[in-house]
Amino acid sequence: MLIVQKYGGTSVGNLERIKNVAKRVAKAKEEGNDIVVVVSAMSGETNKLIEYANYFSKTPSKRDMDLLLSSGERVSAALLSIALNEMGYPTIAMTGRQAGIVTDSSHTTARIEKINTKPMEDELKSKKIVVVAGFQGINKDGSVTTLGRGGSDLSAVAIAGALKADKCEIYSDVDGVYTTDPRIEPKAKKLDKISYEEMLELASLGAKVLQNRSVELAKKLGVIIEAKSSFNENSGTIITKEEDIMEKPVVSGIALDKNQARVSLRGVEDRPGIAAEIFKALAKENINVDMIVQTIGHDGKTNLDFTVPQNELERAKTVMKEFKNEYELVEYEPNVSKVSIVGVGMKSHSGVASKAFETLAKENINIEMISTSEIKISMIIDEDKSEIAVRALHSAYDLDK
Amino acid sequence: MLIVQKYGGTSVGNLERIKNVAKRVAKAKEEGNDIVVVVSAMSGETNKLIEYANYFSKTPSKRDMDLLLSSGERVSAALLSIALNEMGYPTIAMTGRQAGIVTDSSHTTARIEKINTKPMEDELKSKKIVVVAGFQGINKDGSVTTLGRGGSDLSAVAIAGALKADKCEIYSDVDGVYTTDPRIEPKAKKLDKISYEEMLELASLGAKVLQNRSVELAKKLGVIIEAKSSFNENSGTIITKEEDIMEKPVVSGIALDKNQARVSLRGVEDRPGIAAEIFKALAKENINVDMIVQTIGHDGKTNLDFTVPQNELERAKTVMKEFKNEYELVEYEPNVSKVSIVGVGMKSHSGVASKAFETLAKENINIEMISTSEIKISMIIDEDKSEIAVRALHSAYDLDK
Repeated sequence: MLIVQKYGGTSVGNLERIKNVAKRVAKAKEEGNDIVVVVSAMSGETNKLIEYANYFSKTPSKRDMDLLLSSGERVSAALLSIALNEMGYPTIAMTGRQAGIVTDSSHTTARIEKINTKPMEDELKSKKIVVVAGFQGINKDGSVTTLGRGGSDLSAVAIAGALKADKCEIYSDVDGVYTTDPRIEPKAKKLDKISYEEMLELASLGAKVLQNRSVELAKKLGVIIEAKSSFNENSGTIITKEEDIMEKPVVSGIALDKNQARVSLRGVEDRPGIAAEIFKALAKENINVDMIVQTIGHDGKTNLDFTVPQNELERAKTVMKEFKNEYELVEYEPNVSKVSIVGVGMKSHSGVASKAFETLAKENINIEMISTSEIKISMIIDEDKSEIAVRALHSAYDLDK
Repeated sequence: MLIVQKYGGTSVGNLERIKNVAKRVAKAKEEGNDIVVVVSAMSGETNKLIEYANYFSKTPSKRDMDLLLSSGERVSAALLSIALNEMGYPTIAMTGRQAGIVTDSSHTTARIEKINTKPMEDELKSKKIVVVAGFQGINKDGSVTTLGRGGSDLSAVAIAGALKADKCEIYSDVDGVYTTDPRIEPKAKKLDKISYEEMLELASLGAKVLQNRSVELAKKLGVIIEAKSSFNENSGTIITKEEDIMEKPVVSGIALDKNQARVSLRGVEDRPGIAAEIFKALAKENINVDMIVQTIGHDGKTNLDFTVPQNELERAKTVMKEFKNEYELVEYEPNVSKVSIVGVGMKSHSGVASKAFETLAKENINIEMISTSEIKISMIIDEDKSEIAVRALHSAYDLDK
């Protein structure tokens, strides 16, 4: 098998941990696999370098930041290569450039345009372990670029896709994807498999295992991901195509986002374009609107509800003042939570939503807003009741079985 | 003027010092010059990375070491570029590769083969300050290489040569080149100018301002160097062609090397090849023989004296045992010093050597070995008397005037 392994910042967080990673890589090699390892910077390094830059400027040039930040992954790659060599495994350490990763020129948030796989393929043919500095590439002018937060995951997925690897293993400090946050519901279970689509919903809802860009790319390239921990031998969670998941549970997981504040406009004049104007004004102030619910109007008036991150509420209030002639009343609720139910099985099962509403009603929890997609139901509720809601829903959908 | 400035590890040793460097660069730019700045890694960084590597292996691969060690200069270059930008100066930060520095493939001790100057020239034309990560380049396969100790000086000199810069300013924590070590002789004076040849002798004798490889390259390329401090506004020392120095002092400086041990072989059989055999055996053990003196033999016997660094004396003794049938007597003196007088003026002046011998005789200092070159006289003396010797010679040649 050809396996691409990616180790995150905590997995290579100190020299001892890098040695531990070397042992894992060696084990996979001994099992007869060809291995490409992608590494992040040692945890803390990137933040240290950002602090350094901010000493000089609050708005450093993005091109300079890329040169600065790309250094951390080079260090990890070189050290892992040295550790593997010492254990008797021939390796080749590569920067993003040497691994053939070509990106566009959006410094600090570059997109991978193509990967010239020949250098990696040649080294794999000569049975070397290829160690690649993640998070980075070069643009067509030869400038160093970086891929943004979670960029090393992206590097790994893109390399796995380009090399047609059998699997892309993403190592971090968590065991995999859980049915819900085990700190809220200790009965949470690790999922063996989950579809790209579900993972995307869970990631956007705050599951920190993988970022959306990597999952989207994996889906596009058909890369099978296994998310697992580098600190134990537990099996992880496979993220793959829906078709490859035999047993499709109706609900795969419950997610909770506590960082929500609600804005409710009552008696908004029901004319075309009013919502567009309001949300354009919010976007201009870089306010990230999450859920939006508009009820059908009557008497030429409608109600418009939406949520924003809690620390952006004050700025949202300022924007709302600009529109004060457009509505009769505005209400702000600074502390609400979004609880979401995710599952591909929903598509073919009815009654999933009604079970959620019933469950919350039984717990005497009021639902303030509802928003649904094909594989997700999100509800805004009072923050104080949010953990009770998660546990009740987790049990209602039999996720603890 | 086109000026290449190089700032060493202590000059960029922390964020405040980098800001200070930015101010110096800005000042030179404001004076109407085009500027290329070459920077070392922040002091301590390279040693830290070497320690990291040694945690895994005592013999890490040199290719991996180059990838590892080249990261430090990238950080400095990016930070200096950010600092200059913030002050309103457009910059372009470049790695060794981006600056067009192509080396051979001798990882960790690569030699610069050529510099593709176009990228730097283009940026200079658009009036940007070019900031280059020193110490590094790439070989023709695209692998990262480093130039060895003092490598950033080499980068700067090579860039100055390739761009035909008017001057290459090398900044460190010392003011320039002195007539002797001011810690030994407080009356030591900073030299305004010195020839490449004298600098080479002084550097090989322990003056730490510049390493020989950089001076040799400057001589070859005709690059005028100014060695100066980044911590004050004092003028430094110009290192240039002998012809460009109007007033040639007979003696430019006195150097002292206290790290010498003497080996004396008496009654060595005077046959061809014996010296070659002995020094080959020492070289095989990586013992760095410095001065060698052989006196004319009589009765088929000769005396052979040489010096080695003090910490290599024990190994030299072991080698001498292999040759015990080749000599009658061996003496070891573990603590001797080499005092040297350097000056291009010596070539056209007689009596320089005799004045040295006279001066030491007056101080009752016995000379154990003498070795001379066209512009240098070196003498081995008792270590206890070495500082007295330096002060006496400094005064005898009027260097304190």
